[in-house]
Amino acid sequence: MSRKPMVRPGGRSARVQQAVHTAVRELQAEVGRPELTVPMIAARAGVTPSTIYRRWGDLQELLSDVAVERLRPEAPPEDHGRLLDDLRSWAEQFLEEMAAPTGRAYLRDALLGDPDGDNAGRCSDYAAEQIGTVLARAVERGEDVPDVDTVIDRVVAPVMYRILFRPDGLTGAYAHRLAEEALEGFSAGR
Amino acid sequence: MSRKPMVRPGGRSARVQQAVHTAVRELQAEVGRPELTVPMIAARAGVTPSTIYRRWGDLQELLSDVAVERLRPEAPPEDHGRLLDDLRSWAEQFLEEMAAPTGRAYLRDALLGDPDGDNAGRCSDYAAEQIGTVLARAVERGEDVPDVDTVIDRVVAPVMYRILFRPDGLTGAYAHRLAEEALEGFSAGR
Repeated sequence: MSRKPMVRPGGRSARVQQAVHTAVRELQAEVGRPELTVPMIAARAGVTPSTIYRRWGDLQELLSDVAVERLRPEAPPEDHGRLLDDLRSWAEQFLEEMAAPTGRAYLRDALLGDPDGDNAGRCSDYAAEQIGTVLARAVERGEDVPDVDTVIDRVVAPVMYRILFRPDGLTGAYAHRLAEEALEGFSAGR
Repeated sequence: MSRKPMVRPGGRSARVQQAVHTAVRELQAEVGRPELTVPMIAARAGVTPSTIYRRWGDLQELLSDVAVERLRPEAPPEDHGRLLDDLRSWAEQFLEEMAAPTGRAYLRDALLGDPDGDNAGRCSDYAAEQIGTVLARAVERGEDVPDVDTVIDRVVAPVMYRILFRPDGLTGAYAHRLAEEALEGFSAGR
């Protein structure tokens, strides 16, 4: 969001961000999402409400920012030594995380308080980075691979579409099938 | 939504729905989305605010309901005599409508005021019905076709994902390519 200044790690801006994010997460757990207010979050974080309004705009945008942070992958994808296995396993984990009640809630928050589409773009970037890692490893092993965009369209998009629009049939087997189909026609898919 | 009673065409419930939807559309055009309030809509529609709260819950849910109604296709997909052409043309139109500023706004409203996922499900059903029509025509012509779910995953999901998460590269050519790839391996794709 254009409102947010560049965050220098260790600087005041980064400390404020961390304190406010922590306050949101704690209060979400303690009093629940619908009860949250900006003054309540400010008090817990030890900042003024106007600091929050200036930086995040409103509560919805703050919750969106926190949600995207929670959707950031914590580790690189597992390495099983073969693209087909790596992509199957990544797709299954991605589906599990996003389709879980917490994942859905974060996804919803990320999309809602996001007038300029920045936060949704960050979610998509996280997925693209993970897929990029998986594909780069395969290329190093000499495997023939599709590009990141193809995997986004074939694996990430169907999972996200179903979570948002028709949340049925979201099984590990479905994730595996998407991964296999994304690799059809590539030596890595065999 | 569980709040909404069954709507019998021509009954009081249908008349109220129509009056309220019309009021929302008119007021969105006249005063703009951010200024809308339930009492303002009720006054225009000639109902009491409590009628609206009882039936729709809150403003966001009402806007979601109106948005889904606006996303309902007005006509069956065009018939070009060949599945590949029908699906290319449908995918291009679908992308154009959903990616347009009004489409995006409706999509956003449909998803937002939709705690139980009912309205998002209706959006998905509309797309599935249109694809079902296109595929049924192809089967009658003796073409070999994929199932509706495959076309949803291969065409609808990538379009929607990009609109919501990474709105770049949304061209007619992209829609055509998705349609072609969805038919790969089927006689209809040749």
